Amino acid sequence: MAATLTTRGRETRQRIIEATGQQILAGGIGGTTLDGVRAATLTSKSQLFHYFPGGKTELVREVAAWEGQQLLDAQLPWLDDLSTWESWHAWRDALVDYYLRLGRWACPIGSLAWEAAATDPALAGFVADAMRLWRGKLADGIRRMSEAGHLEAGVDADRMAAAILAAVQGGLMLSQPERSSWPLEAALDSLLDVLRSRTLPEHVDAERSVSSLKQDAP
Amino acid sequence: MAATLTTRGRETRQRIIEATGQQILAGGIGGTTLDGVRAATLTSKSQLFHYFPGGKTELVREVAAWEGQQLLDAQLPWLDDLSTWESWHAWRDALVDYYLRLGRWACPIGSLAWEAAATDPALAGFVADAMRLWRGKLADGIRRMSEAGHLEAGVDADRMAAAILAAVQGGLMLSQPERSSWPLEAALDSLLDVLRSRTLPEHVDAERSVSSLKQDAP
Repeated sequence: MAATLTTRGRETRQRIIEATGQQILAGGIGGTTLDGVRAATLTSKSQLFHYFPGGKTELVREVAAWEGQQLLDAQLPWLDDLSTWESWHAWRDALVDYYLRLGRWACPIGSLAWEAAATDPALAGFVADAMRLWRGKLADGIRRMSEAGHLEAGVDADRMAAAILAAVQGGLMLSQPERSSWPLEAALDSLLDVLRSRTLPEHVDAERSVSSLKQDAP
Repeated sequence: MAATLTTRGRETRQRIIEATGQQILAGGIGGTTLDGVRAATLTSKSQLFHYFPGGKTELVREVAAWEGQQLLDAQLPWLDDLSTWESWHAWRDALVDYYLRLGRWACPIGSLAWEAAATDPALAGFVADAMRLWRGKLADGIRRMSEAGHLEAGVDADRMAAAILAAVQGGLMLSQPERSSWPLEAALDSLLDVLRSRTLPEHVDAERSVSSLKQDAP
């Protein structure tokens, strides 16, 4: 449907999506009403249903899709690479920065997961797919690290990727009440330490200290 | 108030709390109504307000307190010890078993965190305190490990405890759509591997392999 809209129509539709996202962050899906969205965007009921014939259910899913895309975009280009330690560190910093800029210590996708699980199975499925896509990209990066010889054999990329993503989501949950990134950073960095502990011995030396290599040289 | 109730009164009150907990798990706080609780427990409106004068808000907090206590109890006696690797492994197994028995791959406390943050600041504060208490017990265990000489110096107990609890909460979030404990176990075990990687060298040998020690012996 979005393809048939005028530029102005697309802008209005996007404005409605973003305002709904703000309401969900502030009051959960349960606290979000079409009347509230209309008031925030100065749109009429017929306009709202013109852009979102499926009403609130459709609107919430569009919000999830848009916020999921923003979240992935914020991790680019590193999330699609992750073939070097530099790429992992840049990814880690970009992700923490993204949540810092959001200013709420909540993952727009992750925070929907629990509420959706209880109220909207289709949305819960969408959130789960977004998490699997994200987890898959991390696993691909771990495989690239192994293929490039940066990691020892036997690292289970899927389990490691799940652990890293769990650290992000759980770290955010603990960061929110502290109004600080330290739990997120503690969790994420611990997992990156796990990955680093699987570095092949020669790569540990190369990474850690060039001078130590020189000492070993004849 | 509970102190002044008869045995039968206490049972009724507890029955209402547990039925409300079930409704929250099934439909979130937003999907829980006093009418629904009354229907599930066959209680009248006046009975409900007799036990919970503060209405739904009070009831939801009592549910959180009760479920938080169940969660802590399920981790005993190990959560109050954690001074040996055996204690850490028994704690880990008891916690995974607890979530398996719940059968929903959701933490009763953790799943309230996001919704409460958006809707009920007092409840959000209660959940945050429960998380801090839990995190504090893990940090105490890490300090006991250091004091007993099982861990090398310099392990930051508070950061490590936050990372472990984040792994539990984030791992559950990823386990729910998979209907499997593997993401939870992958995340939790990765963090326990981090802790183990900080074992003092002689303890690594003693833990990992008695036979390797024998090989080293003259």
